[in-house]
Amino acid sequence: MSRVSSGLWQNLIVVQVYGANTGVGKTIFSTLLGSHFTKRAGKTRWNIDYIKPVSTGPSDEADERYVRKYAGHPVSTLFKFDEPVSPHVAARNSDYIPSDDVLNQRLSAKLKNHASACAMGRGEIGVSIIETAGGVLSPGPSGTPQADIYRPLRLPTVLVADHRLGGISSTISAAESLIVRGYDIDAVVCFDDQSKLENSIYLQEYFGKRGISAFVVPWIPDLADCSEQEETRRMGGYYDRGTRAGYMYQVAGHIVTRHVERLKKMKNMASRTRKAIWHPFTQHKSIEKADDVLVFDSAYGDFFQVKHTNKSMQTIDHKAATPLLYPAFDGSASWWTQGLGHGNPQLSLAAAYAAGRYGHIMFAGATHEPALTLAERLLAGMENTRLTKCFYTDDGSTAVEVGIKMALRAACKRYDWDGSTEDIGLLGLKGSYHGDTIGAMDASEPCVYNKKVDWYRGRGYWFDYPTVKMRRGRWIVEPPAGMEADFGPEHSFESLNDVFDNEARGYSPRYEQYIMAVLDTLVKKEGRKFGALVMEPIILGAGGMIFVDPLFQRTLVRVIRNYEFAPVPSPTPPDETTWTGLPILLDEVFTGLYRLGRFSAASFLAIHPDISVHAKLLTGGLLPLSATLASASIFDAFLGDEKADALLHGHSYTAHPIGCHVANTSLQEMEVLSSGAVWDRYRRGWAKDVTAIKVHRRDREKDTSVWSMWSKDLVDRLSHHESVDSVVALGSVLAVSLVDKKGSGYTSTAAVSLREALLTDHAIGGISVHSRVLGNVIYLMASMNSRPAHLAQVEAALLLKLDFVSGRVPG
Amino acid sequence: MSRVSSGLWQNLIVVQVYGANTGVGKTIFSTLLGSHFTKRAGKTRWNIDYIKPVSTGPSDEADERYVRKYAGHPVSTLFKFDEPVSPHVAARNSDYIPSDDVLNQRLSAKLKNHASACAMGRGEIGVSIIETAGGVLSPGPSGTPQADIYRPLRLPTVLVADHRLGGISSTISAAESLIVRGYDIDAVVCFDDQSKLENSIYLQEYFGKRGISAFVVPWIPDLADCSEQEETRRMGGYYDRGTRAGYMYQVAGHIVTRHVERLKKMKNMASRTRKAIWHPFTQHKSIEKADDVLVFDSAYGDFFQVKHTNKSMQTIDHKAATPLLYPAFDGSASWWTQGLGHGNPQLSLAAAYAAGRYGHIMFAGATHEPALTLAERLLAGMENTRLTKCFYTDDGSTAVEVGIKMALRAACKRYDWDGSTEDIGLLGLKGSYHGDTIGAMDASEPCVYNKKVDWYRGRGYWFDYPTVKMRRGRWIVEPPAGMEADFGPEHSFESLNDVFDNEARGYSPRYEQYIMAVLDTLVKKEGRKFGALVMEPIILGAGGMIFVDPLFQRTLVRVIRNYEFAPVPSPTPPDETTWTGLPILLDEVFTGLYRLGRFSAASFLAIHPDISVHAKLLTGGLLPLSATLASASIFDAFLGDEKADALLHGHSYTAHPIGCHVANTSLQEMEVLSSGAVWDRYRRGWAKDVTAIKVHRRDREKDTSVWSMWSKDLVDRLSHHESVDSVVALGSVLAVSLVDKKGSGYTSTAAVSLREALLTDHAIGGISVHSRVLGNVIYLMASMNSRPAHLAQVEAALLLKLDFVSGRVPG
Repeated sequence: MSRVSSGLWQNLIVVQVYGANTGVGKTIFSTLLGSHFTKRAGKTRWNIDYIKPVSTGPSDEADERYVRKYAGHPVSTLFKFDEPVSPHVAARNSDYIPSDDVLNQRLSAKLKNHASACAMGRGEIGVSIIETAGGVLSPGPSGTPQADIYRPLRLPTVLVADHRLGGISSTISAAESLIVRGYDIDAVVCFDDQSKLENSIYLQEYFGKRGISAFVVPWIPDLADCSEQEETRRMGGYYDRGTRAGYMYQVAGHIVTRHVERLKKMKNMASRTRKAIWHPFTQHKSIEKADDVLVFDSAYGDFFQVKHTNKSMQTIDHKAATPLLYPAFDGSASWWTQGLGHGNPQLSLAAAYAAGRYGHIMFAGATHEPALTLAERLLAGMENTRLTKCFYTDDGSTAVEVGIKMALRAACKRYDWDGSTEDIGLLGLKGSYHGDTIGAMDASEPCVYNKKVDWYRGRGYWFDYPTVKMRRGRWIVEPPAGMEADFGPEHSFESLNDVFDNEARGYSPRYEQYIMAVLDTLVKKEGRKFGALVMEPIILGAGGMIFVDPLFQRTLVRVIRNYEFAPVPSPTPPDETTWTGLPILLDEVFTGLYRLGRFSAASFLAIHPDISVHAKLLTGGLLPLSATLASASIFDAFLGDEKADALLHGHSYTAHPIGCHVANTSLQEMEVLSSGAVWDRYRRGWAKDVTAIKVHRRDREKDTSVWSMWSKDLVDRLSHHESVDSVVALGSVLAVSLVDKKGSGYTSTAAVSLREALLTDHAIGGISVHSRVLGNVIYLMASMNSRPAHLAQVEAALLLKLDFVSGRVPG
Repeated sequence: MSRVSSGLWQNLIVVQVYGANTGVGKTIFSTLLGSHFTKRAGKTRWNIDYIKPVSTGPSDEADERYVRKYAGHPVSTLFKFDEPVSPHVAARNSDYIPSDDVLNQRLSAKLKNHASACAMGRGEIGVSIIETAGGVLSPGPSGTPQADIYRPLRLPTVLVADHRLGGISSTISAAESLIVRGYDIDAVVCFDDQSKLENSIYLQEYFGKRGISAFVVPWIPDLADCSEQEETRRMGGYYDRGTRAGYMYQVAGHIVTRHVERLKKMKNMASRTRKAIWHPFTQHKSIEKADDVLVFDSAYGDFFQVKHTNKSMQTIDHKAATPLLYPAFDGSASWWTQGLGHGNPQLSLAAAYAAGRYGHIMFAGATHEPALTLAERLLAGMENTRLTKCFYTDDGSTAVEVGIKMALRAACKRYDWDGSTEDIGLLGLKGSYHGDTIGAMDASEPCVYNKKVDWYRGRGYWFDYPTVKMRRGRWIVEPPAGMEADFGPEHSFESLNDVFDNEARGYSPRYEQYIMAVLDTLVKKEGRKFGALVMEPIILGAGGMIFVDPLFQRTLVRVIRNYEFAPVPSPTPPDETTWTGLPILLDEVFTGLYRLGRFSAASFLAIHPDISVHAKLLTGGLLPLSATLASASIFDAFLGDEKADALLHGHSYTAHPIGCHVANTSLQEMEVLSSGAVWDRYRRGWAKDVTAIKVHRRDREKDTSVWSMWSKDLVDRLSHHESVDSVVALGSVLAVSLVDKKGSGYTSTAAVSLREALLTDHAIGGISVHSRVLGNVIYLMASMNSRPAHLAQVEAALLLKLDFVSGRVPG
């Protein structure tokens, strides 16, 4: 597993030495650095450890003898291969190919041991020098480029420059490959061969301008035609000078300084944050001390690298060996955004490409390839014949506001209402939430998020509805409390698939009757005016991960599309893509783009909305971008002779190329996941009939399967837990509703305690999980490419810690 | 100048051959490709041109003889240096060092000539093969890495892989350096040396997975100990096979295909855009044909690369030689966002670093380095003792909404109002505009942007004010029409510096009296309640680039801070950072962060607002991010025992690391510009007293200068133009108000005609300028590092085309 801590210890300085190419002097620099630390003057006792994670061929063995000879220390080689070729070729012919995870774990263990040993020797500072093989991106045993392999550890790096002809280029390119992968380069080291090439002069200036220190060390003695004795003498002298020379004090001093700065930063980041940062959705009164702020040093794949707090350290046994950072599974998909894991190098490079090709493009009346491609991709992916236009904004909230503006204009124009003076409301569902800007807030009923916002005025009516959940091993559709008369009694299903079997369930006359009655009261009796139905398909996210009965949403849309909200002054014959009744706006910000396993969440309902809103997963979890898709009959409402008739909305960075290109890359990658074999593991786990999976593989359009990345077994077990009221899971979402003993105050602390236990109790459960709660609901959300093994660990931790928090297991 | 067209022609295929390192076979591949095209079967007549922009040393001359010998074509070398070292070293010892611009212009001219020649020979397709020197980032004669030098041309590239040990790493890194700079790699070519290294096998798979085609060509014949005759025979045979062999048909065919696809895409992008894209702020009825959509292929530095339309082509003399793209100066700073030019490689790498290190970090209760550093940087840069907290959102509009929520809560709490039922308005200025979301819209009076938005309800009162402008050579402060009684008569100033001389101008009792009278009517007489003053300092942007008299804004703030808007139920003694009267919110989204020449626009007014809003330039023109800064007395209003007391606002990508890190990089770079010598050129041009500039250089805090990147001479000349009503300029902003002959309909078409003429009339004026208009105002805005030479060209074009549009010069 790449579940390793990033390598940062109090008393251990780690230097990962990369070369701009092979043969640039990595071993010589490592030896110089090691022997310098060992023999330099001063009170500090330096404890040096050399590690070569992978070595190939006899010359690598010679390197080891070499280091031992001149620096006086052995080299720990973790994996050795005989053939003098790239590790990926050498490994293929060997008995055992260590995986990237095994490599990292072994390296991590080695570093921990060294940190531990240094902690035993009083006052010792450890230095671990890790020599990589070949160039920055040379493949490791598994074939993965080594800078990608070691990325979870994100060790501080030194890059040894290439002194040869062409070396300026290869050195800068190698540095860029490290930077693109989120590495910090502590130093570039240039061997000065005093040739006419002057690489070191150029590189010092180049990197200096970019805030990276480059150091020059003298050229290696000429050993041509040397006797072994003479070679030993010359090289011995060379290394000996390095223990005293200013250039080595500079390099080594700089490495130490960077380490100290890193520690200092780690130490005071939380308190500086408390001073300068106003957090989103946070009651600052509850952030009483610096430890209440989580410090993230980096993130990779499924894991954040979180700074240990005093509290989390308490649960650790062997503190000296423990890195200052620990990996925490990103269990909220970083606020529901992650699709392809953190620090994904492909997305990082995609962002850089678009930045390099365009920067930003003013989008009014203009176009560029990433925006156009993305619009077409979204419109096609929705498989909704109504949607023909794509409007870009920056986040879910702005995209919903645009959708509302679209719907209101279309409705007001059709029904000849004056929206600037008349109150035009929206229809929606209770507990819905569509964003934090005032307009998006107004589309929801009063709730904890908006009730104290001074300009908030809920504008509309919000329906009750039955909900889907598993309770005590049974999938049920439950009517709202006390409304059995309207919605019928609780209804039980054999499987989640059956709940979503639109064909079998058809339409519900009972729901229809209820909805009609409500509409008649609102429209006919009270004379209220409505401009749209705005709702989140399937799951109401911020409202508490509420799963709505799909049959209710389907029925609601059908009734509204057939209802007469006002007489139409000048009716035109509609074609099949024209909206009727009211425009239907589906807010798929959270549920769309594969979050629930399919491109569009609307497909679960077999509804074709007139307006569809997308964000979050759109960029795979990298940066903000959103899209509002609309039908021609919505778009046409804005055509007119005056500019003021147009949709006069447009943020400066509308359709910024970086976001659009990253979104294209990310959607393409998720499409590969969707049509490939990876998700079949989950599909099989949830299938009523396994043969259905094969049909899906042959013909993607027939994917009517309903599945989750969280196991059926977990959901079942949770649903039987005494502290659990009910559970739901779909796609990468799992939501656990804890028992709500009203008045006892137990509930909310139960969810919060569980969240805390998942994050910080390292002593039990093995994996640390960062999660979020919504009232009495704790939810988990994975990236769409989270590793099954990580998910299994998280599931085990959840069950264990739920017991622990519920008092069934002693802590 | 880097004002060259990107290299795309109908009948000319351009291939820029880069090497992953020196000595990887660029010349051999170029020869293979050239001889293949020349001699391959088929009806097409291929016209090959070899260009070596820079060559050094005798071996490069040998390369030229070599190409001539085996491919039968001469090599055009543009710049030749004798020494066999990197061009930047060789050039230093030569008589002449061509600048990057000269290099690009010569290369561009060469390509144009070839395109032209091919157009003469009927049915000929040209192929220009451009061989670079050394590795991808090897320095050119000027010292700039060559991939940066040639970036304005953005030619399609072929990367020749490195077959040696370490070559996998250097090849991928070289590719990444090209990608980060926005290049398209048409093909990677691997010479297969059939060694155990298997580089070509690895690279084909690696690039294939990433959508880049990699091709394998056979290894070069062994020429060791060959006679010249034998060498000729062997190599002749090698190249000869290349004219017939499948592998060369594949490579060459792929290059042709990519060219054809590029042309096709260029051709249909506009019509596809019309189909799928809903543009921001655009009346689509006026986009009647595909030609009305501007197609941007890329952008670099000051220039967009725009596709020629039929209309723009009409003004071109020599069509065959003309590339399909033309460079247009980005004259709106890409909707006011650009700070450091398009495609800036430093920002591109910064974006990639943060993406690689973090991806995204969930920011509620958490922190990461880029967000923290940026918050501290912004708070320090404002030099406003009140501001202590930074809240992040995604764009100017959301940041303003947050600011409004902050102010309203603070005011309602202080005055014990219930904002959820009472109408709490804002105070502001007429013509202001704060964003497109409903809440931000409600902060402005009804105008063209919002009046037809159904949910818009202007909530507040908007003051009249005097404006600053130059008319007929005189700087004046002009009262609003018909309000001389309130504001006094027109007032004239010797210089713009004098207008901003806060000390000399003091406060205005007349303004004060007027403001008091208005407030008394609103508050005392009508009993209205207000929660904040919300205004853009100095310039009202979207409202029409209106320059407000700074004295009025200063006076307004002073009066409001001293006014009693309501009795305070439980007054607490304020310290000097506590807001009084009403919270003052300055919307610096457009005017802040150096747009007007200083970090904060508030510094022109010497006002310390309680809330300050920033976006646009924040990320130097790369991607969306915004910040709302607030004082402790605002922040404290949200502390409470309940979560609902907190500011419950927070978009998913709040404080996304990429945006924050790019912002840090960008602000640092602008700080360098601000404290360096570059802007002194402008400061001197506008200074009353040149010695003042030196003071500034010694002590940045004393920068009280008022200057523009647009020349004083231009502003003066424009102000005398018969078609011009008035002009203003400050920082990188120039706004020209055209004469408004009401009723004649002349005006708006005048601004639009001028905009059109600036963009497309290539026959006159030399430089093409992309600009935007606001009613009868045409404005120009530069990046903060736009080249003075480009600005001079734009100024000349503006004067010329203004004459042309005004009918004073025949077209």
